[in-house]
Amino acid sequence: MQERKKIAIIGVGLIGGSMALQLHEKKLSAALLGVENNPEHAAQALELELVDEIVDLDKAISLSEVIIIAIPVNWINQLLPAILDKIDQQIVLDLGSTKSEMLQAVKHHPKRGRYVATHPMWGREYSGPAAAVRDGFENRAVVICDSADSDKDALHWVRNMYQKIGMHIIEMEGKAHDLHAAYISHVSHITSFALANTVLEKEKEEQAIFEMASGGFESTVRLAKSHPGMWVPIFLQNRHHVLDVLREHIVQLQKFETSLENNDEQALKKLIEDANRIRRIIK
Amino acid sequence: MQERKKIAIIGVGLIGGSMALQLHEKKLSAALLGVENNPEHAAQALELELVDEIVDLDKAISLSEVIIIAIPVNWINQLLPAILDKIDQQIVLDLGSTKSEMLQAVKHHPKRGRYVATHPMWGREYSGPAAAVRDGFENRAVVICDSADSDKDALHWVRNMYQKIGMHIIEMEGKAHDLHAAYISHVSHITSFALANTVLEKEKEEQAIFEMASGGFESTVRLAKSHPGMWVPIFLQNRHHVLDVLREHIVQLQKFETSLENNDEQALKKLIEDANRIRRIIK
Repeated sequence: MQERKKIAIIGVGLIGGSMALQLHEKKLSAALLGVENNPEHAAQALELELVDEIVDLDKAISLSEVIIIAIPVNWINQLLPAILDKIDQQIVLDLGSTKSEMLQAVKHHPKRGRYVATHPMWGREYSGPAAAVRDGFENRAVVICDSADSDKDALHWVRNMYQKIGMHIIEMEGKAHDLHAAYISHVSHITSFALANTVLEKEKEEQAIFEMASGGFESTVRLAKSHPGMWVPIFLQNRHHVLDVLREHIVQLQKFETSLENNDEQALKKLIEDANRIRRIIK
Repeated sequence: MQERKKIAIIGVGLIGGSMALQLHEKKLSAALLGVENNPEHAAQALELELVDEIVDLDKAISLSEVIIIAIPVNWINQLLPAILDKIDQQIVLDLGSTKSEMLQAVKHHPKRGRYVATHPMWGREYSGPAAAVRDGFENRAVVICDSADSDKDALHWVRNMYQKIGMHIIEMEGKAHDLHAAYISHVSHITSFALANTVLEKEKEEQAIFEMASGGFESTVRLAKSHPGMWVPIFLQNRHHVLDVLREHIVQLQKFETSLENNDEQALKKLIEDANRIRRIIK
């Protein structure tokens, strides 16, 4: 039997709150302490019983055995070295959607071994503690990066925890993670934001769109409801890869534009047949 | 009680097959005749019991009281006038994703009144009779266009049929339909095809993508599995509106590109906040 641990969650929003629900559900936590700067979110997190108590960061660090950082990636970069400065033998992990910059920020930190860099590949377009759900992470992938730089015991606990909450673990370098994440997550969000802006810019008859909106529209535009506080830092931290993919995406859209301008049936057919090969990758 | 009718379905694929399942389920059909040029699809449609019998077009027309055309929009343009040439008092409707060109093709036809132009706003990324589902149309919108040009009895039957299968009816002109459909359906598909091509072009490590692929990626790229035989004719028939929306979409993506190039946090935040207003339109 695995010993339950006292766990602090820094940032009790959608991701931290959903993680708290899972840690309790899977009997991984002996106590759940929340650190939350937004007073409204702090009150909600208590009311929804996501955590047992809201405390300040220093108290959370001193009272816990595991510290889980679930805040926007720009804040992780700043807070992670400060937390490593203060810990003794606690395990520290983050749940951020980028990995390279924060790994760089603590690369030579004397407590680097206590840190495990992770990215559970799940999210929703809603944010805050009220958006937390119990089963979000289940059957999804989690990426653990540069694990050779983490202490064995820390890595062991984190791996076991993710398996217990139903995730399958992929390991890769932080740089490889950021490249792949640009493809499978970051640019999808830009596409969706841009599509929403296209509709809002050009289409004045919102009522007609609202009534007609089909499943196809909803699934491509759904992500456009996502919060700028989370996504601006992700795009900026991963801007090299995101820009690379985004430029290619614009080129691909321009191929459709040109084919349509030329009324070129064969070219359109070829572009769509090429795209159909995505069936190899997603079921 | 509504009298059941003998119904012919021209094209027993995803859409025609799903419609057949609903017509039977809601006790709207006394008989279901299928017309299907693809021998494999014809055999599947019989095996799956989507229709009672596969017959040729002339027999279908002579034996039925209602003729439902569920084939790609380029074929509808050609077949619709030929069908109106041959009917007596049958009701004819189509389920195509564009409306202007086919409405134009039969505008002055002496049997124009027997035709009702419709677009049930539902689809899937899979095609063929095996992809047909029983409840696809339920709780979706159906657009009926230029209904003043349809005979009252034909319109009455079609409206009642769509209500019985659980759709809510919107009426508008064919031209307005094609404009709105470009926004809420056609360009979403181009975005998805182009995103798939972006990934397939640039990302060599397909296994990593496959393993990491999250809900966000799946929902934006799902549509890229859609069939060129259906979508090329839609894009070409609606190319004026599709090009207009696609060009705006590229402009919107270029705003993200510029903001990223400039590392402009405020501009990115503004773009995402603007996109968040889509919450007004989709739940």
